[in-house]
Amino acid sequence: MINAERLLETAYDEAQRGLAEGGIPIGAALFDSAGKLLGRGHNRRVQDGDPSVHAETDAFRNAGRRRGYRDTIMVTTLSPCWYCSGLVRQFGIGTVIVGESRTFTGGHDWLAEHGVSVTVLDDQRCVEMMTRFIAERPELWYEDIGVD
Amino acid sequence: MINAERLLETAYDEAQRGLAEGGIPIGAALFDSAGKLLGRGHNRRVQDGDPSVHAETDAFRNAGRRRGYRDTIMVTTLSPCWYCSGLVRQFGIGTVIVGESRTFTGGHDWLAEHGVSVTVLDDQRCVEMMTRFIAERPELWYEDIGVD
Repeated sequence: MINAERLLETAYDEAQRGLAEGGIPIGAALFDSAGKLLGRGHNRRVQDGDPSVHAETDAFRNAGRRRGYRDTIMVTTLSPCWYCSGLVRQFGIGTVIVGESRTFTGGHDWLAEHGVSVTVLDDQRCVEMMTRFIAERPELWYEDIGVD
Repeated sequence: MINAERLLETAYDEAQRGLAEGGIPIGAALFDSAGKLLGRGHNRRVQDGDPSVHAETDAFRNAGRRRGYRDTIMVTTLSPCWYCSGLVRQFGIGTVIVGESRTFTGGHDWLAEHGVSVTVLDDQRCVEMMTRFIAERPELWYEDIGVD
């Protein structure tokens, strides 16, 4: 039995690492169905000057090449944007665990409609982390989600 | 006036570079509304061992950080998969030009439904390039689109 809150710890730790680096505090991790870590990562827009590296894509990249993702679990501190939701749908990731969707709601309902098992934890630490970040660095946040 | 076939040349050239490197022959390029090149790239799954780098994400990455994408044009040799369609939608890329969608159809109709200007060229060279690649390296192709 997967403990979603326990898996979220890894994603939250990644988000905190990103924050300490001066980056956008969103973290993610990919696990297999037994809860074994396959890859972890965080948003690297600021650190690498790379707009293509969201938390989920970084975790996915760090898991390396695989033939199938049906039995994998993507855990992310924040509701996945359309870019990251598209990643989940295209590669057939079977399960998504979301830390919170209060500060931003991406495509997690769309994923659920397309057969992905989605859990939203409404984790208070994740809400507070993003609320503070958006208040302090709105220009970075809006750049990261493509809002002019 | 944008000449879609001319812009496609850059994406096709990227796809051919990828093929010459032993990779998956899909190329893309991001232009501004005047047709100035912002970034170009190709699928790098094989070359970098990185499943997160599709042609569109590579071109997007190589264009660097930007505040807005509404007036940009993403040109790709192949219909964008859900991952790359999600990229286009999240960042508000205004225009997508697709080389062909015969060998694979991703999310370009979904993008058109959400206000993106989409042109599918049905370019014969692009069709032949992917048809040959899929016949010769089916395992690589299906890995790249997450089909077990």
